[in-house]
Amino acid sequence: MTTAAEPSAAFADRLTLAIRRLGHPLCVGLDPHPGCLPAVFRRDLGDPLEPTDPRVADAWGAFFFALIDRLEGRVAVVKPQVAFFERLGWRGLRTLEQVVRRAHERDLMVIMDAKRGDIGSTAAAYARAFLGAEAPFPSDALTVNPYLGLDTLDPFVERAAEHGAGLFVLVRTSNPGAADLQDQQVDGEALHLRLAAALAERTARLRGSETGWSGLGAVVGATWPEDADRVRERLPDALVLVPGYGAQGGSAKDAVRAFVRGPDGRLEGGVVNSSRGIVFPAGSERADNVAAWEWAIDDAIERAVDDLGSAVA
Amino acid sequence: MTTAAEPSAAFADRLTLAIRRLGHPLCVGLDPHPGCLPAVFRRDLGDPLEPTDPRVADAWGAFFFALIDRLEGRVAVVKPQVAFFERLGWRGLRTLEQVVRRAHERDLMVIMDAKRGDIGSTAAAYARAFLGAEAPFPSDALTVNPYLGLDTLDPFVERAAEHGAGLFVLVRTSNPGAADLQDQQVDGEALHLRLAAALAERTARLRGSETGWSGLGAVVGATWPEDADRVRERLPDALVLVPGYGAQGGSAKDAVRAFVRGPDGRLEGGVVNSSRGIVFPAGSERADNVAAWEWAIDDAIERAVDDLGSAVA
Repeated sequence: MTTAAEPSAAFADRLTLAIRRLGHPLCVGLDPHPGCLPAVFRRDLGDPLEPTDPRVADAWGAFFFALIDRLEGRVAVVKPQVAFFERLGWRGLRTLEQVVRRAHERDLMVIMDAKRGDIGSTAAAYARAFLGAEAPFPSDALTVNPYLGLDTLDPFVERAAEHGAGLFVLVRTSNPGAADLQDQQVDGEALHLRLAAALAERTARLRGSETGWSGLGAVVGATWPEDADRVRERLPDALVLVPGYGAQGGSAKDAVRAFVRGPDGRLEGGVVNSSRGIVFPAGSERADNVAAWEWAIDDAIERAVDDLGSAVA
Repeated sequence: MTTAAEPSAAFADRLTLAIRRLGHPLCVGLDPHPGCLPAVFRRDLGDPLEPTDPRVADAWGAFFFALIDRLEGRVAVVKPQVAFFERLGWRGLRTLEQVVRRAHERDLMVIMDAKRGDIGSTAAAYARAFLGAEAPFPSDALTVNPYLGLDTLDPFVERAAEHGAGLFVLVRTSNPGAADLQDQQVDGEALHLRLAAALAERTARLRGSETGWSGLGAVVGATWPEDADRVRERLPDALVLVPGYGAQGGSAKDAVRAFVRGPDGRLEGGVVNSSRGIVFPAGSERADNVAAWEWAIDDAIERAVDDLGSAVA
């Protein structure tokens, strides 16, 4: 049980070493999508689920506890998406706290996908909400939004450095409108690449002494692989968080585009997230007994692990 | 009590008409800053407060309920800052739900300062968490971050349009590093002005039929008044949310720079936020009886109301 203990190593080292042990960079996104709760966890809650029903947040808690048992020892890290927990109100946030603690008990690291960003003392409050062993949602890393400026990242970086945690800064996302701001040309270069270059000046603060990777990481979508190359040029030591693998259509090969050969011969330097493809595999929503649901989940994990394991080999 | 009812008018009309009745655009920021809880609400909780003490969130709830009683009938709108509630864990979010409902019971509108932003179904989940009468945190408007692209604002706009709610998109903030991304020159124009121009194509969706103002608003800091002029040129009908008045140093005159003359002869078209200056006026943290605390709060409200009332006259 690692809930209350402060990690002694930097996030980037802890994550990279865990991934080397397992041989694949799969991160599993925990998104309580309304409409996807399998029948076996839905019980008498009705269909569709009523988000304001107090029992719904507890049902999702039971689901994620069971899921975490399937993931233990097979993946290094999970990524809860805060939006879907907030949608359930304070009881959803209570479930989120419980999910984070259970993940740590099962030796899974937690990247909290909150995309927070604000100025000064407000940024510090978000950092204290999510980073550090005594935070209410004690995550190993947090996703953050840089639009307000590089100074607004500093409270997050300081907090992460003090507590062996990491950050993933939104650099280039994979949605259709990502280009609206992120790709605007500034002096002949896309804005997100200028951002990446500016982040490079700060990666040393969260660099792991054992692996050399930095936990001041970047979110880089898998949709345009050339973007990943250019971000990697500017951020040679930053871990990347790659969304969009699996359900969103990106291939394993594209997803690890920004990865580089590590000492064990495999590609490394980030994590590749799959949410729905693992957590709600086709047919699992109709599973009405635990064995059938476990079979569907185990199968989905195995396929993704094989696929990504081959891509980094 | 308006908690459960869906508003029949657009957010921009409801807010603008309430401000015309009161004669000033003051919005009061509700930020449970650790270290600022007045002695009279602190009781036996110790100093400094321990955020993980379950009683702390309840103490803040009692504080904000008392504050809302002082604000009733004197201001149109309050702006809770979610970060400081998240810092208190799920109990803090439960307090936030209670504060929103109490504000509505006292006829105060609520702008939720969450600065959320994400893609597709995740953005929709945030919108459903904060907008609409059946949302767990049923706010009249929400602050959102546009960095991921204009398509990521659409789920928020749709939800707001359906439920008579509003949005304030981060356009130009007042922190020192705001220029890092927001002011980058794209084809000879600052990025945030291009964003403002793009938002102008969407304001009609949230325009109020009575006042002509749109609830697809913009956050524009009070620090550089010329910025406010240029944003207003591109967004003639958008409400603005101006932070940085009071404690952060902006004057009332600078704060209403983007306002325009309304039918009653006063400047209108937005709200001006003050957080610490009203909620934690100098000396109030030492107030050890309710009467002394109420006096300090009433005095702070009166000064800000007079100052802003003069600025818009």
